[in-house]
Amino acid sequence: MYMGVVVGSVVATQKATSLVGKKLMIVQPINSKGEPVRFEEVASDTVGAGIGEKVLFVRGAAAHRSFAKTPNAENDVTDASIVAIIDQFDK
Amino acid sequence: MYMGVVVGSVVATQKATSLVGKKLMIVQPINSKGEPVRFEEVASDTVGAGIGEKVLFVRGAAAHRSFAKTPNAENDVTDASIVAIIDQFDK
Amino acid sequence: MYMGVVVGSVVATQKATSLVGKKLMIVQPINSKGEPVRFEEVASDTVGAGIGEKVLFVRGAAAHRSFAKTPNAENDVTDASIVAIIDQFDK
Amino acid sequence: MYMGVVVGSVVATQKATSLVGKKLMIVQPINSKGEPVRFEEVASDTVGAGIGEKVLFVRGAAAHRSFAKTPNAENDVTDASIVAIIDQFDK
Amino acid sequence: MYMGVVVGSVVATQKATSLVGKKLMIVQPINSKGEPVRFEEVASDTVGAGIGEKVLFVRGAAAHRSFAKTPNAENDVTDASIVAIIDQFDK
Repeated sequence: MYMGVVVGSVVATQKATSLVGKKLMIVQPINSKGEPVRFEEVASDTVGAGIGEKVLFVRGAAAHRSFAKTPNAENDVTDASIVAIIDQFDK
Repeated sequence: MYMGVVVGSVVATQKATSLVGKKLMIVQPINSKGEPVRFEEVASDTVGAGIGEKVLFVRGAAAHRSFAKTPNAENDVTDASIVAIIDQFDK
Repeated sequence: MYMGVVVGSVVATQKATSLVGKKLMIVQPINSKGEPVRFEEVASDTVGAGIGEKVLFVRGAAAHRSFAKTPNAENDVTDASIVAIIDQFDK
Repeated sequence: MYMGVVVGSVVATQKATSLVGKKLMIVQPINSKGEPVRFEEVASDTVGAGIGEKVLFVRGAAAHRSFAKTPNAENDVTDASIVAIIDQFDK
Repeated sequence: MYMGVVVGSVVATQKATSLVGKKLMIVQPINSKGEPVRFEEVASDTVGAGIGEKVLFVRGAAAHRSFAKTPNAENDVTDASIVAIIDQFDK
């Protein structure tokens, strides 16, 4: 899992059927000091995350499983999902 | 998912059977400012993306699922697919 | 597998159902000299690791398998797990 | 998928049974200008690629699927395969 | 697949059941000149590799398949395995 901050969303009319109705958020990965690391990615939101919120996101099969019980999951192209909104870091 | 811009395509006569008929686009990953990040990758096009267009692409099993209902999917070697054409970034 | 040191944990009220009850530890990857490499990740703890301890963590499907026998594993979103506490490096 | 140039091969007597009879090529990833990027990897050849040729290679499950119909595929350890020889880049 | 040199091993008393009895080797990735690249990883040994030996290692599902026929493979947490000892590079 990766920590990130939501910085925006992607608008796309022409896309895979399985992405219709999903919110495609732009996430800047961060460390636990809130500093940006690596590069922005795009993740499907599953928890109602808004711009500016710190989140946890996952990649790969785990992201797919967050949509495991949706229709047509067998051809879902999700490879990144926001799975939690971070309240705070305990250190 | 990753943001990218299509910069060209790959011509390959000798290739895995499962790649025949697929458009193999060269994608330069970008951030939401449109700046290049990391290095070029090659992704199978599923949405009719042309050179110069901004796209979303996915990696791994998700890319494979974009061809889940094609013949011989069980030996498909796709590990990256373009799954959306980006209209704009909302920030 | 990657070596890391636990530096904290993530508190998240709003999260995927499959993360409820899991301890989400912040792990700083290290090399065998104990020096930090790359960037912090977040991993579900399966061995009772505490802050300051050196651990092994895994990514992807392997992390998911560490929860293979838990309820609702089919929609578990774990993509990183702590699977061992490191006693020492033999070199 | 990634672009690369074949720079050599690996000779290994002691290896997983599933690698016996596979050509293990050393591939230097490149961009579409032919410039080296990142670091060398080793990929099983499926298209008869020779030293100096530009190729496409894939990682992970996709590489495994390139050997999906071979004997003992269920314990095949391939995680990277050369799947095409590049004739040219169209840009 | 990646080239590496074995630099040590990890001693861990408290670990996932599926790791008991596996040799957890610390591997420094290298290129075909023998130069170190990226950072150390830890891989389960399947070929009897010793410290100082050059090896091939794999990640992800391929590493898991190297233990496909062991007991309790369904909850095996291996995500990296040493699958060959390198005799030489042909270039």
